[in-house]
Amino acid sequence: MSSVAAKPILYSYFRSSCSWRVRIALALKGIAYDVVPVNLLKDGGQQFSAEFKAANPMQQVPVLKIDGITLSQSLAIIHYLEDTHPNPRLLPQDPKKRAQVRMIADHIAAGIQPIQNLSILNKIGEKKMEWAQNCITSGFQALEQILQDTAGRYCVGDEVSMADLCLVPQVANAERYKVDMGPYPTITRINKALLELEAFKVSHPSRQPDTPAELRA
Amino acid sequence: MSSVAAKPILYSYFRSSCSWRVRIALALKGIAYDVVPVNLLKDGGQQFSAEFKAANPMQQVPVLKIDGITLSQSLAIIHYLEDTHPNPRLLPQDPKKRAQVRMIADHIAAGIQPIQNLSILNKIGEKKMEWAQNCITSGFQALEQILQDTAGRYCVGDEVSMADLCLVPQVANAERYKVDMGPYPTITRINKALLELEAFKVSHPSRQPDTPAELRA
Repeated sequence: MSSVAAKPILYSYFRSSCSWRVRIALALKGIAYDVVPVNLLKDGGQQFSAEFKAANPMQQVPVLKIDGITLSQSLAIIHYLEDTHPNPRLLPQDPKKRAQVRMIADHIAAGIQPIQNLSILNKIGEKKMEWAQNCITSGFQALEQILQDTAGRYCVGDEVSMADLCLVPQVANAERYKVDMGPYPTITRINKALLELEAFKVSHPSRQPDTPAELRA
Repeated sequence: MSSVAAKPILYSYFRSSCSWRVRIALALKGIAYDVVPVNLLKDGGQQFSAEFKAANPMQQVPVLKIDGITLSQSLAIIHYLEDTHPNPRLLPQDPKKRAQVRMIADHIAAGIQPIQNLSILNKIGEKKMEWAQNCITSGFQALEQILQDTAGRYCVGDEVSMADLCLVPQVANAERYKVDMGPYPTITRINKALLELEAFKVSHPSRQPDTPAELRA
């Protein structure tokens, strides 16, 4: 696996929102890759296997093997792709706009998703639907307000950025947990515009190698 | 507040681990700033005041007002400081090492801290001590293993990086929740080395303007 010419390998689960973020980045930057599906539900969770733990001690997807290294954490992976494949860029050149992009990305990646992910919801038990809705609702209220200052066609201005890569999968989670999107017209508008882009379509959970037949687009 | 010459203002809580990350970055880069303390416990939580909500819709510390903009999310703030005050650098020049730094930083900032922070623990209720311990223990098991590949004197090699800014406050949280640090000798060694550095000392929770007298160093 040390050859830099080898195709990158993405350990991914079709429905994982963090895996989707990375799939969008790979698609936007035109990087070909192979997928190794990791089913987070089957066999008690394939992320807990010894083989996968060796790749990622955190036992979470996504993991990307690339250029002889193994990376976890979706935003760290996306930053690496940005550093090594700068076109098209996912961070604006202006430092203040770049800060806004990262603020929105982290708001979702550190402030919303981790507290409503599968492993937490499994610990919460029967109130998990309500828990997930509360996490997303409170995060989206803040995000809708932040976007009033930053948004153009997309989250920050008119260029697709790292923030958008986090937004679309988080809205999919909101829909999965039946969050009323009525109070978030800006989030809804941006999500819709992004879903029209080819990179967001090919990376969609409904079109992955491990997508079950009944959920295929 | 639009003058770029104005001193930055940090909204901070002495015991907030995310605020501490930013205080370390400001200290390392030699950036003078004023503190506005936000007490997360007093008055039902001062972060919920209308005044603070206007600064940060997320109603969380830290918030940094700098160069005419208002930023939240600690790693987004630290990235902005890195972009605008590159010396001393907190990210290595080599993209692979930089990816390792961000992976560790995000592992803590998105994988551990959010699921053991005060607002989550308040929702968990009487089992909160056990919950916090489980979150930190499982995160530290993975981190200890990751560090076997990346660490030198500090988390990644021998230079202080963004990863270290996340490590020290997370270890403080572990101590607060009485996590047995025995199984994590590498984390413990690095934490000790970092705490000897002046920037980590002056930013310490025991030495802030809002530190209660009984907790002062």
